Amino acid sequence: MAQTQQPAQVCKYLLQNRGYIENGLLFVDNHGKIAKIVRDLPRDQLHNALEGVAEDKVVILNDNQFIIPGFIDTHIHAPQYSYCGNGHDIPLLEWLDTLTFPQESKFKDSNYARQVYTKSVARSLRNGTTSACWFATIHLDATKELVKVILEQGQRAYVGKVNMNQQSPDILIETTESSVGDTRAFIEFVNAINNRMSVVETLPLVTPVITPRFAISCDSELLTELGKLAAEYDIPIQSHLCETLSEIDFTMSLFPESANYTSIYADHQLLNQRSIMAHCVHMKDEEWALMKKANAGISHCANSNFNIRSGMANVRKMIDLDLKVGLGTDVSGGYSPSVLEALRCSRICSIAKNPEESLSIPELFYLATMGGARVMELSDKIGNFEVGKEFDAILVNTTAPRSPLDIFAHDTVQTKFEKYLFVGDDRNNEKIYVQGLEVRLPEY
Amino acid sequence: MAQTQQPAQVCKYLLQNRGYIENGLLFVDNHGKIAKIVRDLPRDQLHNALEGVAEDKVVILNDNQFIIPGFIDTHIHAPQYSYCGNGHDIPLLEWLDTLTFPQESKFKDSNYARQVYTKSVARSLRNGTTSACWFATIHLDATKELVKVILEQGQRAYVGKVNMNQQSPDILIETTESSVGDTRAFIEFVNAINNRMSVVETLPLVTPVITPRFAISCDSELLTELGKLAAEYDIPIQSHLCETLSEIDFTMSLFPESANYTSIYADHQLLNQRSIMAHCVHMKDEEWALMKKANAGISHCANSNFNIRSGMANVRKMIDLDLKVGLGTDVSGGYSPSVLEALRCSRICSIAKNPEESLSIPELFYLATMGGARVMELSDKIGNFEVGKEFDAILVNTTAPRSPLDIFAHDTVQTKFEKYLFVGDDRNNEKIYVQGLEVRLPEY
Ligand SMILES: [Zn+2]
Ligand SMILES: [Zn+2]
Repeated sequence: MAQTQQPAQVCKYLLQNRGYIENGLLFVDNHGKIAKIVRDLPRDQLHNALEGVAEDKVVILNDNQFIIPGFIDTHIHAPQYSYCGNGHDIPLLEWLDTLTFPQESKFKDSNYARQVYTKSVARSLRNGTTSACWFATIHLDATKELVKVILEQGQRAYVGKVNMNQQSPDILIETTESSVGDTRAFIEFVNAINNRMSVVETLPLVTPVITPRFAISCDSELLTELGKLAAEYDIPIQSHLCETLSEIDFTMSLFPESANYTSIYADHQLLNQRSIMAHCVHMKDEEWALMKKANAGISHCANSNFNIRSGMANVRKMIDLDLKVGLGTDVSGGYSPSVLEALRCSRICSIAKNPEESLSIPELFYLATMGGARVMELSDKIGNFEVGKEFDAILVNTTAPRSPLDIFAHDTVQTKFEKYLFVGDDRNNEKIYVQGLEVRLPEY
Repeated sequence: MAQTQQPAQVCKYLLQNRGYIENGLLFVDNHGKIAKIVRDLPRDQLHNALEGVAEDKVVILNDNQFIIPGFIDTHIHAPQYSYCGNGHDIPLLEWLDTLTFPQESKFKDSNYARQVYTKSVARSLRNGTTSACWFATIHLDATKELVKVILEQGQRAYVGKVNMNQQSPDILIETTESSVGDTRAFIEFVNAINNRMSVVETLPLVTPVITPRFAISCDSELLTELGKLAAEYDIPIQSHLCETLSEIDFTMSLFPESANYTSIYADHQLLNQRSIMAHCVHMKDEEWALMKKANAGISHCANSNFNIRSGMANVRKMIDLDLKVGLGTDVSGGYSPSVLEALRCSRICSIAKNPEESLSIPELFYLATMGGARVMELSDKIGNFEVGKEFDAILVNTTAPRSPLDIFAHDTVQTKFEKYLFVGDDRNNEKIYVQGLEVRLPEY
């Protein structure tokens, strides 16, 4: 991840969360940050405006191209990608027993982990996910491999070694001691990499995240230790919360001293402004209040809500309560590794929930970008194009080779953008930038 | 559409609606019909089994390929493809006024029609739709162009010149006389083509279909005339039925003499076993009974149900009532031209409707293939692989170049098939066959 001199970006169409810029310029500095944005530049002043910028550092977009902030996937399981799309007719418990647990146990082998993770990360990046919150498995070495793969490919990521010391198959159970020890070792491993790289003035790309799989898989002692680690290292936390009704019942039977599911995390110092809770489908009023008080973030995973038949999360309510919410693919509870597809599914979920209050296109695009940035507590660094933020972006080409959509003479910036959102896919993601650098993906 | 000698198909994996064949052979005759299916052929007998078949007529599949029956799209609007994915935040009436009607009026120009239809049909075929039920516009010449484009590209299709003589913008209103006259002229045009081609013993690829846009757009006199034309030429009928509540109210105000919306079509001899009614979201018990009595077919368009916020059709009920039902993309009320996507959306719709009764994967695949064949009253000709049926098929390659899915060592025939259904797209549709011939699509 050596930093080299950054290209300046010339943008005919620069799409932002609310509105877009035509005939503009966006400059990226040597640290990958947005240095300057020029709006409404007359065509004949382009030459002057680029004075002093080397020609090979300039990217000029045509009428069918635009740039947008990169997508943020706030919840994805790296080991589950290898069976993405499989087993959706199987009930949840059988899916865990016959697919998820046997597959995750294979990650004790780091070579296997590298093979799978190389494809998981590439697929995520290729779909335009410039930042992702990854769950790995309990295995320390495999989780280190995930970090290496992410750094090689150049994605921004939170990476969590998963913690499980109860209510799981033998092959995936840790002792409390090894769970805590390996988590500490993992944090130190990532911190060491980041310290080596901090000679340049950039945000580290990978951040370790405390990752109890969910309350069911960790006893109170382990949760307490994990809360302490989160505080000691000042790092984020991610887990699952109120996904299905039967999960909630079982969870509460294991933690009778907590008032509700959300309280379990709060009671163990695992609910704060850096917490990312996936799902939140079945929440009591007092749980919403706890989330709000902690300023914790929510990862909404609509595709998974349907697949697992969990129920449909109420994103409109989250927005009305001014809770931080972003989108998650939840591969492979969700079958699509694409945040674009998560956006479409979130829209459908909101319509199925209540057509009168469904999410608008600007709201959906916000959720997929700035919403995710807020959930990751990185809204001052990424999520849209503002001077001083890091340049994480997708160069979209609506007429890319073998594009899944067709452009006609009557199309406008707006209709091209909408076609990309609803009909586009990774074929339209011509270039993907993280921290100002174009990511380098394996051939496929 | 000259018929040439057909290739024999050697299929390692031959997927059918219920179960699949490994190590089999499928022979296609010179008329594009399935001549023979061999199951469980030992590898060492392959050579003998192919005795007498020219080597260049044999296609041998590898472990990552399989063939499936082609998809059937029972409801799609050809002129609407040019704004597919657009306007989904706009209310229905505004969407019609600002997008649909102005766009459809452009099809009075047949050159424009050819440009758009070339892309509409190619996109549909590329996504694996080997049979489609197309709505064109009111324009005779443009609808003829649609037929020509379909024959050039080689799709099986029902094609309808749309009828509208009331409750529509001036620019899209016909007189009753011209509406009936142009419909008759269109039928004669298609029949003449089919007669010229009938020197070979094959089913005509294109069939004219009587297409009142919906009851609102046609007065009773026109509907009566259309019912007569359907009977006179013994051809199918397609329209919209019970899509949204406000549409139903308005329709009933226009036809006070009919007992309900479905009765309007029945009262005008437009409801029989060859009728294809799109949507059927809000049906009364007596309307289900009418559909059943007529043995009419239903096109379920889940994506459109969500987009238009129509409500969610109850496919489980249709199946329980043993009604004929297939899938429709309803481009561009639906934003995806892919029946695979319609399948995914139908699954989500059924889960949102009632997770306890959601559609299984075999049911969904059935709907996308045999269900559609039954709706088109072509279940003796297409929909699955049986000796004597026409060979309409997709050769799926799960490891096609730039495939949207990844295959791992643990994948099986079953998991590869599921990955294609949930994560695959047109990139995996390596070859598409209609009536035994590989379709020839424009470069893109
Ligand atoms: Zn998850
Ligand atoms: Zn329609």
